[in-house]
Parts: sequence; structure tokens; C-alpha cells
Amino acid sequence: MINYPNKKKVSNQKLTSSANRGMNFESMINRTNEFYRDNDLAIIHKKPIPIQIVGVDYKTRSAAKITEAYYKLPSTTDYNGIYKGYYIDFEAKETKSKTSFPIKNIHEHQVKHLDSVKSHGAISFVIVYFSSLERIYFLDSDVVSKFYKRAKTGKKSISLDEFEETAYLIKEGYRKPVDYLAIIDKYYIKK
Amino acid sequence: MINYPNKKKVSNQKLTSSANRGMNFESMINRTNEFYRDNDLAIIHKKPIPIQIVGVDYKTRSAAKITEAYYKLPSTTDYNGIYKGYYIDFEAKETKSKTSFPIKNIHEHQVKHLDSVKSHGAISFVIVYFSSLERIYFLDSDVVSKFYKRAKTGKKSISLDEFEETAYLIKEGYRKPVDYLAIIDKYYIKK
Repeated sequence: MINYPNKKKVSNQKLTSSANRGMNFESMINRTNEFYRDNDLAIIHKKPIPIQIVGVDYKTRSAAKITEAYYKLPSTTDYNGIYKGYYIDFEAKETKSKTSFPIKNIHEHQVKHLDSVKSHGAISFVIVYFSSLERIYFLDSDVVSKFYKRAKTGKKSISLDEFEETAYLIKEGYRKPVDYLAIIDKYYIKK
Repeated sequence: MINYPNKKKVSNQKLTSSANRGMNFESMINRTNEFYRDNDLAIIHKKPIPIQIVGVDYKTRSAAKITEAYYKLPSTTDYNGIYKGYYIDFEAKETKSKTSFPIKNIHEHQVKHLDSVKSHGAISFVIVYFSSLERIYFLDSDVVSKFYKRAKTGKKSISLDEFEETAYLIKEGYRKPVDYLAIIDKYYIKK
């Protein structure tokens, strides 16, 4: 079930960038994807969290209770789906920093995954939310790869200036809190 | 981690359809997807099982232990990814029956999901494994939809004869136990 933590509060506010203040980033993306699906624009879902199940109690036939399980490292990214025939794949990250994003927040296998799907024709990217600044950036996976490689020997983070130079700013909105398809329409899909 | 329940046993056998006997269907598909990824043919993954987490024990900082959780109904299908630029989406089902496949094994929202992604340009389908017969069929989502509609007022299952008429038979192999991309190459992608 989709969670709307601030539905009541938000509905009384103006449709400004502060409309989504207080909503967590995952909820903002989920709400956006739900809007896309409800309006049949794109079918993009968040993948479930990968769990290693160790113990299950089958006391009742209808509802098996998992009694011991552990979080696993995800082997791919969090979101994928289809838009206008394109396979879409992305990871979303949030930082409270006002100056830079630590590259270690993205796992190496996720960078590799984004690179691979791109080589097969996907539109792949990372969305980074600077929550203190209320700014959301769309980073193409090629740019992510470049910074990832640099971090192996050099700077371990992407500065805000570098975001300004290499990423697209995603506009916030009320019905589509993180309207990343607007970026795809503008910069990826030829009319 | 991918599980190879019969690796040792299998390696001594001939490359016949019985090579995968005893391997469960999910492992057969996982091994196939791994072969596709290892050979950079396609990037297709199984989604994690959706779980509703209720209780977590944070005793140790490194390994949070989930102490209470429940299986949730999946909102989409089990497998998706990209092949030759196409968004691929499918569900896999197994039956021990030798005569028919009960349509109720596929959830209604999964049929809707397959329909929606197809309308956006995906190649979407259901793979059905008749384990007693060792036959694997590839059913286009349009065909699945048709049978699903019929089941609302009529026959609740798809007979083996109907599979023969409307589905593609997937050849079993050792390295690619469920080589569904061969069907996609042959019937979906124009050369």
C-alpha cells in the first residue's frame, strides 16, 4: 500500500516547492510513480526490499509469520519500469548535506547495473534529493559512472556545483512530487 | 545468491531435456537469467519477494534482525529487465498437472500489469512449466488475458491442447534451462 504521510496537511498548502516538505523522499517518488500509473503515462514500480528469510512459523495456514529474516544488499536498483517503450531504471538517494553528495551512498554493483542496462538501450539514472536545500537532481548514469571512477583515486563526493554543471534539476510539484519524466521527455526522447 | 541444487549431478548428465530434472523451476529461470547476464545478452532479474515488516531487532548495529514479517501479495510480476532495447516483463508458474493449468494461479492484478506494460511497448508474457511432462510454454500476455476473461464466466483452466495451439514451446537446455529469449528472437523481434 502506498503511504501518504502528509496528505491532509499538504492539501491545504499552495502548489509550491514546499508542498512536499516533510514527506520522505521515497514517498515522494512513490506518489509520483502512482500518478504516472494512474494516468497511464508510465508503469514504474519500486522493487521490494530484498530479505533473506531464515525462520517461518506456519501455525496458521492463511498467514505464515516470518520470525527471522535479515536485510540483504540489493543486487540492482530500487526502481524500474517502462515509459514510451523505453526501459527505465534508476536509484534514488537523499542527503541532508547542503554542499555535496557522498558517492559511497551508491553501491558499486548498482553503478555497474545502471551501466549495463544503459548499454542495452535503457534510460538509466540516479535521482539525488538535497533535502535541506529542497533540490532534486537527475544524474545520467554516465555521469554517475564518471564520478564513481574519480572517487576511486580522488574526490569521494559530488559537489553541489558539479550537480549544477552535470545534472538536470527536477521540478517539484504537488501531484508529481518528483517529475523525472519531464527530464526524460526534454533531454532523452526525440520528438 | 543463486542456488544450484543439482550442479554436481547435472554436470555428469547429457545435454538432454532431463538435464534439469529435479531442479526447481525458479532455479531454472534464475540460472537462465544468470547465463544471459554473464554473456551480456540481457539484464533480467527476479524481483525480491514483497514482505511487510512488522518487527525489527536493532541489537547489533551491523545486522538488524527482522523478528516479525508477513508475505504480501506482489503488485507486479516476478521478473523484468531489458533485452535488445525492449522492456521485458513476465511471470513464471509451475503445475504438476499433465492436462491443464488452473488460471487462478495467476493473480488478476498481474494480468492487468502485463496488459499495461504491453500497451507501453513491453514484451510481456507468462511462462508455464508442466513439471510432470517436462514441457515449458511461453504464453503472450494477450493470450493470457483472453483466457483470464474466459475464466470469469467459463472454463477455469487452460488445457494442454490450448497451450499447443496458442503458446510457444521453450526448449530446455543445460546452460539456458529456460531459453525464453529464443522465442522473443524468433517471434517478436524483427531482424
